[in-house]
Amino acid sequence: MNRSGNSAHRKRLGGAVRKRRLALKLSQEALAERIDCHRNYVGSVERGEQNVTFDTLIRFAKALGCTLADLTREGRC
Amino acid sequence: MNRSGNSAHRKRLGGAVRKRRLALKLSQEALAERIDCHRNYVGSVERGEQNVTFDTLIRFAKALGCTLADLTREGRC
Repeated sequence: MNRSGNSAHRKRLGGAVRKRRLALKLSQEALAERIDCHRNYVGSVERGEQNVTFDTLIRFAKALGCTLADLTREGRC
Repeated sequence: MNRSGNSAHRKRLGGAVRKRRLALKLSQEALAERIDCHRNYVGSVERGEQNVTFDTLIRFAKALGCTLADLTREGRC
């Protein structure tokens, strides 16, 4: 099975998260508080370093006031 | 933090996977082969029992000939 390419997908999704966060004028720390995780985790997700689970993706979307469908569309996933 | 509601999201996403799979006339086993996982796992995802990771969601989408944005939109996630 070809698992290549997911890194690019992760980075694009992370970019979409970052773009939404900045549009809301939220710091990584403020977003982390909404999601109940550490600020470093938010940074790591935004850089595409994390293989985030579906439930956590839903939490990110909710905290950003959008849907996961929005984030994946904006991240061209 | 409120983590409720993810079960409903999972089920809707699983329903979207199932709908796509059936539209392609693929058995759970055939889809599992494309994703390199066990048939039981596909069934479990379709029932919303799994907290699937992002990378695996991308693999499901590719195996179904669509994007994750398509699946999340169809699953109203």
